[in-house]
Amino acid sequence: MQREAKVFRNVVIRNISRPHPDTVRSLGEAGVATVHGAQGRIGLLRPYMRPIHPTAKIAGPAVTVLSRPGDNLMINAAIEVCKKGDVLVVVTTSESTDGMFGDMLGTLCVTLGIAGLIIDAGVRDVVGLNEMNFPVWAKAVSAQGCSKVLAGSVNVPVVCAGELVRPGDVIIADPDGVCVVGKEKAREVNDVAQEKLRQEAHDRALYASGTLSIDLGGKREKLAELGVEYIEDEEDY
Amino acid sequence: MQREAKVFRNVVIRNISRPHPDTVRSLGEAGVATVHGAQGRIGLLRPYMRPIHPTAKIAGPAVTVLSRPGDNLMINAAIEVCKKGDVLVVVTTSESTDGMFGDMLGTLCVTLGIAGLIIDAGVRDVVGLNEMNFPVWAKAVSAQGCSKVLAGSVNVPVVCAGELVRPGDVIIADPDGVCVVGKEKAREVNDVAQEKLRQEAHDRALYASGTLSIDLGGKREKLAELGVEYIEDEEDY
Amino acid sequence: MQREAKVFRNVVIRNISRPHPDTVRSLGEAGVATVHGAQGRIGLLRPYMRPIHPTAKIAGPAVTVLSRPGDNLMINAAIEVCKKGDVLVVVTTSESTDGMFGDMLGTLCVTLGIAGLIIDAGVRDVVGLNEMNFPVWAKAVSAQGCSKVLAGSVNVPVVCAGELVRPGDVIIADPDGVCVVGKEKAREVNDVAQEKLRQEAHDRALYASGTLSIDLGGKREKLAELGVEYIEDEEDY
Amino acid sequence: MQREAKVFRNVVIRNISRPHPDTVRSLGEAGVATVHGAQGRIGLLRPYMRPIHPTAKIAGPAVTVLSRPGDNLMINAAIEVCKKGDVLVVVTTSESTDGMFGDMLGTLCVTLGIAGLIIDAGVRDVVGLNEMNFPVWAKAVSAQGCSKVLAGSVNVPVVCAGELVRPGDVIIADPDGVCVVGKEKAREVNDVAQEKLRQEAHDRALYASGTLSIDLGGKREKLAELGVEYIEDEEDY
Amino acid sequence: MQREAKVFRNVVIRNISRPHPDTVRSLGEAGVATVHGAQGRIGLLRPYMRPIHPTAKIAGPAVTVLSRPGDNLMINAAIEVCKKGDVLVVVTTSESTDGMFGDMLGTLCVTLGIAGLIIDAGVRDVVGLNEMNFPVWAKAVSAQGCSKVLAGSVNVPVVCAGELVRPGDVIIADPDGVCVVGKEKAREVNDVAQEKLRQEAHDRALYASGTLSIDLGGKREKLAELGVEYIEDEEDY
Amino acid sequence: MQREAKVFRNVVIRNISRPHPDTVRSLGEAGVATVHGAQGRIGLLRPYMRPIHPTAKIAGPAVTVLSRPGDNLMINAAIEVCKKGDVLVVVTTSESTDGMFGDMLGTLCVTLGIAGLIIDAGVRDVVGLNEMNFPVWAKAVSAQGCSKVLAGSVNVPVVCAGELVRPGDVIIADPDGVCVVGKEKAREVNDVAQEKLRQEAHDRALYASGTLSIDLGGKREKLAELGVEYIEDEEDY
Repeated sequence: MQREAKVFRNVVIRNISRPHPDTVRSLGEAGVATVHGAQGRIGLLRPYMRPIHPTAKIAGPAVTVLSRPGDNLMINAAIEVCKKGDVLVVVTTSESTDGMFGDMLGTLCVTLGIAGLIIDAGVRDVVGLNEMNFPVWAKAVSAQGCSKVLAGSVNVPVVCAGELVRPGDVIIADPDGVCVVGKEKAREVNDVAQEKLRQEAHDRALYASGTLSIDLGGKREKLAELGVEYIEDEEDY
Repeated sequence: MQREAKVFRNVVIRNISRPHPDTVRSLGEAGVATVHGAQGRIGLLRPYMRPIHPTAKIAGPAVTVLSRPGDNLMINAAIEVCKKGDVLVVVTTSESTDGMFGDMLGTLCVTLGIAGLIIDAGVRDVVGLNEMNFPVWAKAVSAQGCSKVLAGSVNVPVVCAGELVRPGDVIIADPDGVCVVGKEKAREVNDVAQEKLRQEAHDRALYASGTLSIDLGGKREKLAELGVEYIEDEEDY
Repeated sequence: MQREAKVFRNVVIRNISRPHPDTVRSLGEAGVATVHGAQGRIGLLRPYMRPIHPTAKIAGPAVTVLSRPGDNLMINAAIEVCKKGDVLVVVTTSESTDGMFGDMLGTLCVTLGIAGLIIDAGVRDVVGLNEMNFPVWAKAVSAQGCSKVLAGSVNVPVVCAGELVRPGDVIIADPDGVCVVGKEKAREVNDVAQEKLRQEAHDRALYASGTLSIDLGGKREKLAELGVEYIEDEEDY
Repeated sequence: MQREAKVFRNVVIRNISRPHPDTVRSLGEAGVATVHGAQGRIGLLRPYMRPIHPTAKIAGPAVTVLSRPGDNLMINAAIEVCKKGDVLVVVTTSESTDGMFGDMLGTLCVTLGIAGLIIDAGVRDVVGLNEMNFPVWAKAVSAQGCSKVLAGSVNVPVVCAGELVRPGDVIIADPDGVCVVGKEKAREVNDVAQEKLRQEAHDRALYASGTLSIDLGGKREKLAELGVEYIEDEEDY
Repeated sequence: MQREAKVFRNVVIRNISRPHPDTVRSLGEAGVATVHGAQGRIGLLRPYMRPIHPTAKIAGPAVTVLSRPGDNLMINAAIEVCKKGDVLVVVTTSESTDGMFGDMLGTLCVTLGIAGLIIDAGVRDVVGLNEMNFPVWAKAVSAQGCSKVLAGSVNVPVVCAGELVRPGDVIIADPDGVCVVGKEKAREVNDVAQEKLRQEAHDRALYASGTLSIDLGGKREKLAELGVEYIEDEEDY
Repeated sequence: MQREAKVFRNVVIRNISRPHPDTVRSLGEAGVATVHGAQGRIGLLRPYMRPIHPTAKIAGPAVTVLSRPGDNLMINAAIEVCKKGDVLVVVTTSESTDGMFGDMLGTLCVTLGIAGLIIDAGVRDVVGLNEMNFPVWAKAVSAQGCSKVLAGSVNVPVVCAGELVRPGDVIIADPDGVCVVGKEKAREVNDVAQEKLRQEAHDRALYASGTLSIDLGGKREKLAELGVEYIEDEEDY
């Protein structure tokens, strides 16, 4: 234990920098698919992260939690350092589906105005969490309870469902999944996302009037360039 | 590239034969479980194919799409050759969960009267797709977007979630899963399915009045033949 | 076949002991997460067991069924020996996702007052089962139908989704999962669960008024004992 | 903690009954496939349990260990109560792949004459374990180390990879997997297994001389009874 | 049963066409990776199909087997219609890992000169199969035995691990996986494969002498065209 | 495309800092389990990363590669900037098992003295790679070949199998898995690891002479503190 202490410290960092709330809100309105596209198709958490509520949609700065599997002591510590609007991002040091969060902590989070929870493990009391409108994205639902006796860290960089999340990075989550945007790039990504939304609205109107997508963006030329052949009838193949 | 071209052609086949619309509609009303049973318990896609909308139910001739993973150029090409009522069936050359279809293409498909999408990969914009009532069965929900630059084929035979689907084969999909019926057998399978529905209605009435299922179809005799012993009390075991 | 018969008997046991109905009902009201915690965080079935209906909640004594994969003859035999309020617990001798139960057997179970089904395999007709309010927890949804020709047993101890279930043990199931309580411990576990509910109500009120969870139960002291350091600002890390 | 103590005790049971060593040895020589068949095709652990060494083959009475995931304190406690020839069977209260056993404990087990390890979790130091000829069957290989601070039990019934294992039950393990035989049925199962071996030797000789397996055991008649049709040429289908 | 018989027949087809043995042998020598590339990167079975022996390498015409899960009657029927050099390709109507093939059938196959087995399910007696040099690619190793009582078909088209295999198609299998080549394209694919081998030998010699792969085939130009920037030092990023 | 370019750049960074070679070599000799323990049980890649060769053992500074799935253009670019002794660490922007590396690139890597490959995707030509003694840890073996046309980056921070790897971080890999050590902590971690090795040698000698592990490190006291009860005979439980 002592020997390990030399190279690895468990810490709780109280204050972190966060992007401007307007940027965060704007990214949240753009949604996961648009934001993820806007930053070059990176930053999407693995698709096994699924929402507990089918239509929830949030955005907020990340407060990160690194826990041992099956122990939620550090989530309790993290809640204290959250500000209104933050999103808890919880990971474990090895894979686990134990239910590390339920309606008790949910009640506290709602009281404090925490925006939601992203957890690369399990949650429980899913009916209660939905009733109190606390949005959660998780790997599993499991009633398996936790101990509260093992050390971890709050507000250190973590890997959640395959993506690096640093404290203060923007989390956008909706029914399509969860995306992380680096806090120093948030404004720039948002600018691209807003432009993308305008383009999508334009294309959507075209599609609603029957314009074929193959006729937009040079796709027919691409097919020809790739040598894809058109054949009139299946008998000719 | 050239060397491969000798043995493998990427094609888009415009015209395919389709079963009679009455047969297709009738199979759709019978539903997946009944149709699958009617054709000898074959043709069911793997159960990882799940509906995005919890009660959607469709049937239609397949327009098949073979894509490279993470690229949806060929879906755009396929939409053009669909007729009203067709079902898009999309597969990739190696496994992928990327979101190859969203509300933009969904809008176009609704405009054109395409009946639905079966995709052995991911979709996104799931809230939007449900709002516009476009039915989708998929392996995953993922916001991970696609390129539009790689060749593939439309209306060639494909393997989707473990089953062979040829263009024009009937796809039946509902909350129980997805089933494919060969187009040349569709009428015959439908005849069996309709007979099966009458038998099921009869049995259901018996069950609703308390007749035990073990008393129907020779099951008691089967138990005896198999040597299954009845024991009165658990202490006697 | 004969050689195996010497060491292994397939049986149907008609009568089993069951815990007092008041205990069962009380455990059901406490719910899976509380009961599982009350008996020392054991007895929870693997989290891949998911409810077909999103808010169903049941409790009842188990009638167990051991089947060959892809054959549901023994479920038919088991229904006959169920009493009103029992819960069917079905397992297979090797892994399977085939749809072993649908709306036909569902109709019969509802008629007989069977409380629900826990099945470590697949079910089908999920829309019908929800419409008739028959609660099911399953590993998969699959239309793949079954034969009715292979031997198995009813009311022998089985392993379901990783937990031992003996006939008459109490099954508690809700959206958080499925938990089993040994019938001889049911009353004692219920006493602890009721006490736990009172404690949870008390804590929930505290959380709703903004008391931090880190301030309850000696958690701050634990953090200190574990050597977790507090750091004011991320720059200081 | 106190509340749970009322219904759940963590114990180490020192002395257990074991089947006769000759029976155990004989079952081990018969091997997993034969023994599993001999007892009616039950008792096989899930096939995700794989040997670390490709040709190891063991049999012995089980000493069972119930641990919290990521903690191996109870394995240390269990080793003390093992007798020469016993097999350690380790499970965790929720799923884990952490490496709970390595060359240090392997060295101790070899010194004490413990026959091998069956662990529904991970192991590490796999090169060292193979060099010292300590046979292991595990769900995973992982260097992820363990704490030694959480309570559990030794020699209580456990569920390992889907099968119930009670202390003293016979574990047979070889490259085909792991099988458990109830200690009170061990002798009877062994008798059937030995008879099965004689039958297999007879059949193997027939096959080696070219007798077709379809001509043995009434299989041709079964095909006819099932209505399977023979067709001379693929063109006729 | 009768009703299903109208639309679905179980058959054993005795005679199938096969490609020329020289083509088959030549494809086998080229190996899976080269052949798969030669036919346009299609035809590869899913990578969960793994060899039992670490260096086995085979090629041969497919004799296909469609079985119910957990029953190997049809494998017995298929062996009779195999010719020397054929490869058995076995699939089940729903997913299973049961051990459908072991050293008894292996002995018969070796006696008859069957080239190997590709099975989208489990095998057992893996030590014995390796000792007799019978090559197997499978999804799982499992001692779980089978019944021999359920109908299926031999030499009908099947889907194996995600790819369509028709009787007589060429199966190529080595430690990299399993590939299928349509029998009518076998000669043409082989021509491309042989050319590919010559190209690979040439490139390999270049690499062995230190030529960088980035300098071959226009890759540097591609990087530039894609806008990938070179940066001298990590501090400049 | 242009819009994305504003927020996301694909780069190849030529020069990175690396830890001292003596530290790297020393960490490699300590091995994955010891090093992972020495830095506080963090930094282990997910256990699905398995070695192609059963006894390979390497250590080296990471050169990281971020690729699109199914395209290996960037691996070719990365090889050029590797120094002798480096370890290639390859990840894809969404999950893939395609075989992105084979004996051609392996030949080049051996010629250049690259120490090995860690790839969160597939590899092929596994026999050839083993014959040329090029060590590989991968998620899958697959012959599925790649395109060489999509942009990515070299020597940017990546997430590989659940852990953050930055260019120059030390990769240690052996049959127990793969571990990453931050380059600025490498020396310190190595000091702890060497001390740990001495402690392990001491404990191993004790175990070889029969000292029980339960008698070391205060474990008996821990059991008593946890309230684990000792019971003499199973009948007393």
